[in-house]
Amino acid sequence: MKKHNFNAGPSQLPLEAIENGAKAVLDFAGTGISILSTSHRTKEYDAVNNGAVNLFRELLEIPENYKVIFLGGGASTQFCYVPFNLLEKKAGYINTGVWAKKAIKEAKLFGEVEVLASSEDKNFSYIPKNVEIPTDLDYLHITTNNTIYGTEYHTDIDSPVNLVADMSSDILSRPMDITKYALVYGGAQKNIGPAGVAFVIVREDILGKVSRPLPSMIDYRNHIANNSLFNTPPVFSVYMIKETLEWLKRQGGVNGIYKRNVEKAAELYNEIDRNKLFKGTAEEEDRSLMNVCFVMQPEYEELAPKFLEYAAEHGCVGIKGHRLVGGFRASCYNALSLEDIRALTECMKSFEKKFA
Amino acid sequence: MKKHNFNAGPSQLPLEAIENGAKAVLDFAGTGISILSTSHRTKEYDAVNNGAVNLFRELLEIPENYKVIFLGGGASTQFCYVPFNLLEKKAGYINTGVWAKKAIKEAKLFGEVEVLASSEDKNFSYIPKNVEIPTDLDYLHITTNNTIYGTEYHTDIDSPVNLVADMSSDILSRPMDITKYALVYGGAQKNIGPAGVAFVIVREDILGKVSRPLPSMIDYRNHIANNSLFNTPPVFSVYMIKETLEWLKRQGGVNGIYKRNVEKAAELYNEIDRNKLFKGTAEEEDRSLMNVCFVMQPEYEELAPKFLEYAAEHGCVGIKGHRLVGGFRASCYNALSLEDIRALTECMKSFEKKFA
Repeated sequence: MKKHNFNAGPSQLPLEAIENGAKAVLDFAGTGISILSTSHRTKEYDAVNNGAVNLFRELLEIPENYKVIFLGGGASTQFCYVPFNLLEKKAGYINTGVWAKKAIKEAKLFGEVEVLASSEDKNFSYIPKNVEIPTDLDYLHITTNNTIYGTEYHTDIDSPVNLVADMSSDILSRPMDITKYALVYGGAQKNIGPAGVAFVIVREDILGKVSRPLPSMIDYRNHIANNSLFNTPPVFSVYMIKETLEWLKRQGGVNGIYKRNVEKAAELYNEIDRNKLFKGTAEEEDRSLMNVCFVMQPEYEELAPKFLEYAAEHGCVGIKGHRLVGGFRASCYNALSLEDIRALTECMKSFEKKFA
Repeated sequence: MKKHNFNAGPSQLPLEAIENGAKAVLDFAGTGISILSTSHRTKEYDAVNNGAVNLFRELLEIPENYKVIFLGGGASTQFCYVPFNLLEKKAGYINTGVWAKKAIKEAKLFGEVEVLASSEDKNFSYIPKNVEIPTDLDYLHITTNNTIYGTEYHTDIDSPVNLVADMSSDILSRPMDITKYALVYGGAQKNIGPAGVAFVIVREDILGKVSRPLPSMIDYRNHIANNSLFNTPPVFSVYMIKETLEWLKRQGGVNGIYKRNVEKAAELYNEIDRNKLFKGTAEEEDRSLMNVCFVMQPEYEELAPKFLEYAAEHGCVGIKGHRLVGGFRASCYNALSLEDIRALTECMKSFEKKFA
């Protein structure tokens, strides 16, 4: 049975990327050596590393004064690396959920943190609007997509101060204006690769402004100066990023994939809104294209475990909601197809017929 | 042509582990889903994570009061995480090469650092002996194997203070007494897995003694409390560790592999010492079993590039020495076979016949 993988991360990657990954594990680029056993100082790995960076630059139209680096670990590590590198006096954060809160907690170790807005009053079911942003901040931090609550910023906001964004779960899922941001980071394991590597896109002039001494591995400038080869990089993870971005380019880049993501999300939200059994949890205008969160209507609450089972029997896996929201979450990252989404909506329809 | 991969890291992994890795990339544990797309919150990944930890414990006979954790990134990150967690007032370091120096540099950001001994006077060609260790240190840090210079501690030293060791390149290559150490860490990409993950083995009682606030991701206690699932782990890298350690167990564990490593190193050092063209660079008693460093005898110096070419033509790759030592380095980690070593010694012999 074909599996439809709705996991929130690590999550579905494009089949072509996976197949090329398996081949490279056996024999990388015709060298007769596994990519897992390939030195990062070879010309073959240089091509992978530069290929991944250049695809990032091309797909997001990143200007020359921004640098793209890949670092071992995930976004959680960046929660402290960002303030380490950027927070001298005061930073502003917008609290849109668990991941934003974690980022806020780490930043407080490095300076004053002002939480400018929060949607905690309604269990993070919306994105705060019209937030007043003071001009004396070192930076403003936002989480553009909130995997647990299924909310997303649908536009690149205007900020009078350096804008920093955790885009772990919506990077390269939609067109964006990178010049509105000073730094964008994220873990790879949603839209662009396997777990174990983070990307940082940074406008170089914002670095080197803090007075604290920085450990070498935490100082972004060292990774920039060494083109992400300051230490041994996570070779295979970067290879998978390159493969995934090549696939993305073949899908028409971010414009092409965005069109498909809109279509996929519409299909699923329409079914949630139509179906007697289910209801969405996020405010309609802030609904995420990436993580679709829904619950049983109160009168059908007891059917929830049965629906999880039913979906799994039909090949739809990973749709259990995060414990903080309950219900269901279908993560619909780039590599998910409309066919995958339809497998789920068909389940919802037939389940309704059976039990409503 | 079969390749004999002498790269210093990332380096040769066991063929069985590589083949199982490629299979898991296509379909993990019969789930129909790639391991690259598998959630770290599944029971299948739990088995991988616990399997890798338990194999570590079994193979090194690690007592209950030590914890084993896996962290994204490599050993370089631990150069600052170690003093972050352990250095309150003063630490002692022994300087045995580039990696030790890097560790020393990071530690200085956190407290007083006393370099108790150094072999820099002879380009790190030996391990300092009979080092006097003050008893007022928070810890003593050593690098047990020095990849660039081909030197290695062949015994677990006695230390009156907590002993911390970077064992990136000799972990699980020989029997060791873990109870002589308070903390052992390293990158996986030499003997136990691909790049992108580090291991930390720590006696739990030494943690929580520093007064500085620790960022969550840097505090080892968070990773211990969450069994290395505090954040999304590098799933595939941990899977490869488990596969590699299972292979190691089938080789007779560390006792079995040590016997083979001794045999391999003897074969290669004997040829270096016998051959008119070559000479070893490290003091004989401190010669590494893992990284065998050698150069051309001065009168044959100009043959060096030709030998590199000649070796590559015979399938021996990755033997160029580090630029700080020059000449050649054959890394002979666990997964290299005696056959691989003999391919190189045969090259050395036939090259000698041709050119000496």
